[in-house]
Amino acid sequence: MRTFLNAQDLGGLRQALAEAAEIKKDRYKYVDLGRNMTALLVFFNNSLRTRLSTQKAAQNLGMNVIVLDVNAGAWKLETKRGVVMDGDKSEHLLEAIPVMGCYCDVIGIRSFAGLKDREYDYAETVYWQFVRHSGRPVFAMETATVHPLQAFADLITIDETPVPGKRKKVVMSWAPHPRSLPQAVPNSFAQWMLAAANEPDGIDGGLDFVITQPHGYELDPQFVGGARIEYDQMKAFEGADFIYAKNWSCPGVTNPQDYGKVLGDYHDYLSWTVGERQMAMTNNAHFMHCLPVRRNMIVTDDVIEAPTSLVIPEAANREISATVVIKRMVEELKAGR
Amino acid sequence: MRTFLNAQDLGGLRQALAEAAEIKKDRYKYVDLGRNMTALLVFFNNSLRTRLSTQKAAQNLGMNVIVLDVNAGAWKLETKRGVVMDGDKSEHLLEAIPVMGCYCDVIGIRSFAGLKDREYDYAETVYWQFVRHSGRPVFAMETATVHPLQAFADLITIDETPVPGKRKKVVMSWAPHPRSLPQAVPNSFAQWMLAAANEPDGIDGGLDFVITQPHGYELDPQFVGGARIEYDQMKAFEGADFIYAKNWSCPGVTNPQDYGKVLGDYHDYLSWTVGERQMAMTNNAHFMHCLPVRRNMIVTDDVIEAPTSLVIPEAANREISATVVIKRMVEELKAGR
Amino acid sequence: MRTFLNAQDLGGLRQALAEAAEIKKDRYKYVDLGRNMTALLVFFNNSLRTRLSTQKAAQNLGMNVIVLDVNAGAWKLETKRGVVMDGDKSEHLLEAIPVMGCYCDVIGIRSFAGLKDREYDYAETVYWQFVRHSGRPVFAMETATVHPLQAFADLITIDETPVPGKRKKVVMSWAPHPRSLPQAVPNSFAQWMLAAANEPDGIDGGLDFVITQPHGYELDPQFVGGARIEYDQMKAFEGADFIYAKNWSCPGVTNPQDYGKVLGDYHDYLSWTVGERQMAMTNNAHFMHCLPVRRNMIVTDDVIEAPTSLVIPEAANREISATVVIKRMVEELKAGR
Repeated sequence: MRTFLNAQDLGGLRQALAEAAEIKKDRYKYVDLGRNMTALLVFFNNSLRTRLSTQKAAQNLGMNVIVLDVNAGAWKLETKRGVVMDGDKSEHLLEAIPVMGCYCDVIGIRSFAGLKDREYDYAETVYWQFVRHSGRPVFAMETATVHPLQAFADLITIDETPVPGKRKKVVMSWAPHPRSLPQAVPNSFAQWMLAAANEPDGIDGGLDFVITQPHGYELDPQFVGGARIEYDQMKAFEGADFIYAKNWSCPGVTNPQDYGKVLGDYHDYLSWTVGERQMAMTNNAHFMHCLPVRRNMIVTDDVIEAPTSLVIPEAANREISATVVIKRMVEELKAGR
Repeated sequence: MRTFLNAQDLGGLRQALAEAAEIKKDRYKYVDLGRNMTALLVFFNNSLRTRLSTQKAAQNLGMNVIVLDVNAGAWKLETKRGVVMDGDKSEHLLEAIPVMGCYCDVIGIRSFAGLKDREYDYAETVYWQFVRHSGRPVFAMETATVHPLQAFADLITIDETPVPGKRKKVVMSWAPHPRSLPQAVPNSFAQWMLAAANEPDGIDGGLDFVITQPHGYELDPQFVGGARIEYDQMKAFEGADFIYAKNWSCPGVTNPQDYGKVLGDYHDYLSWTVGERQMAMTNNAHFMHCLPVRRNMIVTDDVIEAPTSLVIPEAANREISATVVIKRMVEELKAGR
Repeated sequence: MRTFLNAQDLGGLRQALAEAAEIKKDRYKYVDLGRNMTALLVFFNNSLRTRLSTQKAAQNLGMNVIVLDVNAGAWKLETKRGVVMDGDKSEHLLEAIPVMGCYCDVIGIRSFAGLKDREYDYAETVYWQFVRHSGRPVFAMETATVHPLQAFADLITIDETPVPGKRKKVVMSWAPHPRSLPQAVPNSFAQWMLAAANEPDGIDGGLDFVITQPHGYELDPQFVGGARIEYDQMKAFEGADFIYAKNWSCPGVTNPQDYGKVLGDYHDYLSWTVGERQMAMTNNAHFMHCLPVRRNMIVTDDVIEAPTSLVIPEAANREISATVVIKRMVEELKAGR
């Protein structure tokens, strides 16, 4: 595995979930695998969960870890050829990225969407620059359009949580937020749920996936193609086993000029806040969120604090998903593939 | 040991000092104890000595170390239930702290007093939030009211420094400073000296402890209860073996509205600067300070540079005190207590 | 080896190059040498290559690494005795540096030239304060006047790159830049090239070294004494095997009042930008630069991207040069010298 952006990069999810369960039973089982290897974690944006869990994951594998914080403002890389670099950019990516590759074996990249230029964001420009120029396997620690370590952790969490029925119904619900947020988390969650639903035995008993959101917030078909969308939140929640709440700004699929915007006044959408009223429609569903979460905007205190809430187990599984992903990359490096 | 705030948390000081001596003889004696365990060090405030010495201590025990710098300004945690989080706080402590606990085995916290709200500071609100919600043993790396790793290092330093007489006289002296400083260091130093004085054989030969300070700077009785206070600095210094200088702002014990203030103009207190005049009263005393120290405000160049000055040995013993404390926590975790 | 500032600190370069080749063949050959030892890397200035490569080097040797970022603005050390410290400086170097020495075995220092006070910069004031007061071996990670880890990496790169003729001709060329840059890199490169040229067998087949630059940019004789200077860039490039481009500000050797300045308008010097025109004069020379490099100011896109360009191999060799240097320091510590 040389890249990790999408569910498909892992190959079969059943096998990946089995590896996750093995790591979870003994986090240091592969502590000798990564000895004398170095993971470089490059952060262009802030991080709490990802920073801690990914460091821990690499250390679980016995690797040395180097964390590099790149202040997006201070470190402006020139990306075009032919430019006379007499301004505020003091380095070209064609030098900076290969150099980073010199001092490590695998690279993790955090680089958020700017939410100004849809084409630039959705091309995953920064991520692919690292893949092309570093010479190393590169995994996403939330990039412009995806957050696969989160989605994999969420899948692990759903997989290990039993429900009364045989088939699991998972509902991803948009929820209000005062600021513009990227689509990385919902894009990945949808992609992974659809992949698990489509894989025979991807989830024990099978999985139904539904998205509920206000009109205008349609996600990019490359991630949600084939997903059922239900614009009536209450109806979507009927019989659900898992409610995955998340805000996202306008993906700009139908109206590109709205890309990255909060549509309308968020106060008008407060009925979407997940509370007792909606949860009453479900099959005593488990509440999920990737965190950080704004309480009483995304979800009420009561719902997030309920015994069925899975927000902390999801976060704990970030260590597991990252350990599996880095382990895969290290194994392939050692096999010389 | 699940918490480390107070001298009492270590149990008997004699035993703790014996462990310190053992570690000092061979810093890596327990390098296999903490293998495949992680210490998370969370800094809400700047740090030089604590950052370096505590990392070194955890590495002495073979642990992985993750350092998290939390910009107090940027990371505002909501702490109340029921608040609609539509402002500048993007995460609630009820999520943030359990998440941090997911990725580590022990946690160290640095969180200074704000010096605005005495009740909030003296309740050690941030520290106890971590204890309650992280699920991990938590040790103070200077919190609002205490700095026990420093006080333990100071006790080690006093214990290992012979004096001509049998009984050691230790004087803690307030000294002037242009800015408002917390009471954490003097609170802990007093608490630890009193504990050592009260413990049979706590210090070989016994220990007398005296505090000298201007009127209005009385420390909280929970830390200094039972200590002798002598408002005449020259008289306090008579026959002293150790002079521990430190500035602190008004603890607000008698006048709560003065909490955190510099009383009067500090220029009027420059006679309190520890110099040759005062040291001449002592029994050729050793000068001590926790550092950083402002020279010629707290102490003159000549006194801090004298061969009897212990400021560097005190700092060096920070590694030792932290190693003992983390070792205790790891031992209890492994024993399943 | 207690200090590492100059080529002479390594003793014979031939032996150092042999050690570099050994490390390069097996980077972890000495992974047990530094076990239970700590390298402290102190950065007073930003760093990408040095930060990553030096961490990697210490980890190659099995050491624990502690990185300390010192914001030059926030951490102002008082350096004079007798000053009443009632201003913005909260610590004296006579305490701060010995304390840092307490928690480590070797120290690396990055501290750039201020380019305001030639005497202060050229005395290497900060570096020697660390040597005098830390009690530890100290190596330069680019200081005010030298960057020996870079120059050693450059020497390794030249040594391992075969050329058609027997004798290698190396040309260091000044190039234009819009801002004032220190002289550390050219000082060290010149010093190391001259040392290699003067050492019998320093470089297989021998080495000729030429500096080309506009009038007024003469480097300090302590570094370039004995070097041939050719003010006509085209003539200097004739028959060259290696072109080492670099900007530097006025060293102030002839006119001390010009120290640290960009002389004239840099637009008037754009003919010095290394391009095809100049490279055509050479013996199909390899292009070199320490990075970061401003393209189309220092060098054209075509030249830096040519297959003969060595900028990435130079950067990769930074790991090797740092491993050799730290290894030498650790070996001497263990031998008790």
